[in-house]
Amino acid sequence: MINAVGREVPHHPFAGVGAKLVSGRQASPPIRSCEDYPGDGNKRVPDLMTALKNAGLRDGMVISTHHHLRNGDYLAAKLFAAADALGVRDLVWFPSAVFPCHAELIPYLERGVIHHIEGSLNGPVGDFASEGGMKGIAVLRSHGGRYRAMQDGDVRVDIAVIAAPTADPFGNMRGTTGPSACGGLGFAVADAQYADHVIAVTDNLVRFPCAPWQIQGNYIDQVVVVDRIGDPSKILSGTTELTRSPERLLVAEHAARFVAASGVLREGWSFQAGAGGISLAFTLFVRDLMRERGVRARFVRGGSTRYLVEMLETGLTDFILDGQTFDLDGIRSMRENANHIMTSPFNSYNYHGKGNLASLLDCAVLGATEVDLEFNANVVTHSDGRMLHGIGGWQDALFSRCTILAVPTFRNRVPIVRERLTTFCGPETLVDVIATERGIAINPRRTDLLAAVAGSDLPLKSLEELKAEAEALCGGPPESLELSGPVIGHVTWVDGTLLDVVRQVTA
Amino acid sequence: MINAVGREVPHHPFAGVGAKLVSGRQASPPIRSCEDYPGDGNKRVPDLMTALKNAGLRDGMVISTHHHLRNGDYLAAKLFAAADALGVRDLVWFPSAVFPCHAELIPYLERGVIHHIEGSLNGPVGDFASEGGMKGIAVLRSHGGRYRAMQDGDVRVDIAVIAAPTADPFGNMRGTTGPSACGGLGFAVADAQYADHVIAVTDNLVRFPCAPWQIQGNYIDQVVVVDRIGDPSKILSGTTELTRSPERLLVAEHAARFVAASGVLREGWSFQAGAGGISLAFTLFVRDLMRERGVRARFVRGGSTRYLVEMLETGLTDFILDGQTFDLDGIRSMRENANHIMTSPFNSYNYHGKGNLASLLDCAVLGATEVDLEFNANVVTHSDGRMLHGIGGWQDALFSRCTILAVPTFRNRVPIVRERLTTFCGPETLVDVIATERGIAINPRRTDLLAAVAGSDLPLKSLEELKAEAEALCGGPPESLELSGPVIGHVTWVDGTLLDVVRQVTA
Repeated sequence: MINAVGREVPHHPFAGVGAKLVSGRQASPPIRSCEDYPGDGNKRVPDLMTALKNAGLRDGMVISTHHHLRNGDYLAAKLFAAADALGVRDLVWFPSAVFPCHAELIPYLERGVIHHIEGSLNGPVGDFASEGGMKGIAVLRSHGGRYRAMQDGDVRVDIAVIAAPTADPFGNMRGTTGPSACGGLGFAVADAQYADHVIAVTDNLVRFPCAPWQIQGNYIDQVVVVDRIGDPSKILSGTTELTRSPERLLVAEHAARFVAASGVLREGWSFQAGAGGISLAFTLFVRDLMRERGVRARFVRGGSTRYLVEMLETGLTDFILDGQTFDLDGIRSMRENANHIMTSPFNSYNYHGKGNLASLLDCAVLGATEVDLEFNANVVTHSDGRMLHGIGGWQDALFSRCTILAVPTFRNRVPIVRERLTTFCGPETLVDVIATERGIAINPRRTDLLAAVAGSDLPLKSLEELKAEAEALCGGPPESLELSGPVIGHVTWVDGTLLDVVRQVTA
Repeated sequence: MINAVGREVPHHPFAGVGAKLVSGRQASPPIRSCEDYPGDGNKRVPDLMTALKNAGLRDGMVISTHHHLRNGDYLAAKLFAAADALGVRDLVWFPSAVFPCHAELIPYLERGVIHHIEGSLNGPVGDFASEGGMKGIAVLRSHGGRYRAMQDGDVRVDIAVIAAPTADPFGNMRGTTGPSACGGLGFAVADAQYADHVIAVTDNLVRFPCAPWQIQGNYIDQVVVVDRIGDPSKILSGTTELTRSPERLLVAEHAARFVAASGVLREGWSFQAGAGGISLAFTLFVRDLMRERGVRARFVRGGSTRYLVEMLETGLTDFILDGQTFDLDGIRSMRENANHIMTSPFNSYNYHGKGNLASLLDCAVLGATEVDLEFNANVVTHSDGRMLHGIGGWQDALFSRCTILAVPTFRNRVPIVRERLTTFCGPETLVDVIATERGIAINPRRTDLLAAVAGSDLPLKSLEELKAEAEALCGGPPESLELSGPVIGHVTWVDGTLLDVVRQVTA
């Protein structure tokens, strides 16, 4: 089966952006009764193993977790240790993202406690799967795609296990306080709403009511108190470090100069920037440009960091609509500032909804591992075929009105622009600009942007030129990878269709 | 069909509190796609008629509204005028409550634009229905019962029309600001989540994003801007006036003395009090008792008024968990104070959930129109059989740990305590205390409460004694009403079963 972008997929071929017709009604969880819950509202059980037993854990179930504890997450390991001790096998793990710390789950994948991961992989677990170690096939979805999959019923979660930095015995919870504070809990919202059974795990139990709450205890079946849900030093992760590379700073500067010259940056604009080095540098460049011009943003979306918080607190933006909180300033701001607002994939990213926030943004600045000459892009595999990065909100954010992929022209002597993507993750109809340290390429489809920057001093180039320059420096084009091994991953589009597959690499 | 409390009902007989087993999955709305919504997020349409046409309005549809604008609501009249102009008939109106201002809808009931009201009636509309004017049968549900009915799929709303005191073109909305500010919008939450189509109507359109929001625009299909959604002077209604009747003050004082003497009022307690005269007086009495004793509440639920806000602001309670905001102080407090929190029937009242807030309360003080000698109670009809009061959150709040019905022994020379209820609304297993101006009766089932107040100076009496005293003053027991006319209303219990029917009275 060949899909609309020429990739062979086993089922549900991608038909083009917006081409899939929707029908039917949303999925929903079971009806419960107050009669079956403690009359005093105290849903505590002694430990995770008891909670899993009470939830009816059995072979083959789908178990979800969220990733707000990032590389400091202790919960996934505790969860699968408990499941293992209970003797269950072939579980499907449905995380909202995987981090390098989850390398400790590899033994459970090897021993069949976890059958496969229904989600993007990353780092060591990605390497493990790329080499054929996982029994089942990884299903890669964006953050919005994950929400949609639960909403539309593609994935029914049997048991959601939610790490709660602060919770009460009824299950009301928030992420902005406690020793393992992580900020918003937006990625766990779908799990709370749609899973058949929901367990909250906290290391900071407070008196009822844990108010203000981010997730209401009425979604929660059981509450477990543990010693620690995460390592605070790794919850606030190194993703918020500015790049010091002169080339990458130049990438960011070019992206910023582009939004300024094109008029995308204007009074009342909005943008999304992640917490990667180039994105952070972009944020600082536009901050300075906004100050110079006396221009304010109506809202910014993040990946909130101290840089966004500073913009909010100095009046450079009216609101932060926060998808994920990355540092202590972000957490403090969300806790204290009514204009720093938690969002979830429901309102920010869900494509099968009544619009979403990401598609209303004037600008999104994103990364990529590869770009082809038509402006299609890859974000999950390296050019050696290894599946090392999650999709995150990347596909969802492509829907902004001006999507800029800000990338170096080569990495480790491998050019970024190439004839054919190793893995197809995002279609060119949504990619407007490629900003690199050697120049800026505008998608010919965007004649409006081309007209807007005509006559500017921007270093405009074609993708062919950027490709040729990088190849000259790297000693030729990258090798084209022809993998013929088993499929180890499915790359899903935001509507649930398949964009591409990822194949096993030889170890 | 005779139900568990001896009442004849046509179907789904009430089987006792907690007796109904639940199964199946919740209802859900249709799946939508961002492709079908404006790319710029602007969901505005010119007027309500256009919105209703776009929503596919046709004969027999179920149309919902909320009652946060109370007796100042302009929207229901605009809505049915538009439906009438479009020529549709036999609509089912599914409001969260009806107010005297809705007398202006009677012509639409007479002419068949509205077939029946799926909800509690009140005032003139109740009178109209009681006299047999409505084509269909009113289905009376509590606030929690209304949420549950949508959640469980008993009622599928075709079009929800939500009055939004402040909204943006995407449909994000809140009730705490704008010329028609009403406070929280909790009663509209279910409608936004479950209806097939959702229209927001505002008289205060603001720039995107309307943040903080109470209801997310991702639930909203269309936005209509009108001149006025309500009359502010009637949104803040007279329900927040303290009673000046010496008898009713004594009722409240007895209820307050009971909670103090019984130990229900203690450090960290919680209670719910409405905005009726006796409830407000109760709140002031317990406020003074709490000050005297140096005791604080952990949370109070309301019906928030300036009296509850004063308790929050002077540290007598840590939180207000607000089901409905009644006055300007309540609105200001919800807007400004992070510990004054909007709730919805989902978390406060839904009986088919994983617990709810109302059942965790130490105490609820409620009214009643009639009480029988077994402590069963009526709240919807007068002793002449007229259906003049909504159930509101009354049935839901019965689940508190100590439920006190605070009532005078007679009204208009009709004793409150009687042999047989005109209409059965609440079972005695949930009614713990009847507080009157002539004494306090404790349900014999509550041996713990009886023991707690043994030896106190409370004027404890039996219901039989209170009945005899009232009858002596009123010249005998009330007439027993034997209505044999057609059924005009069904009284639903919180689980969806039928407690009783209401019959037509002769005009």
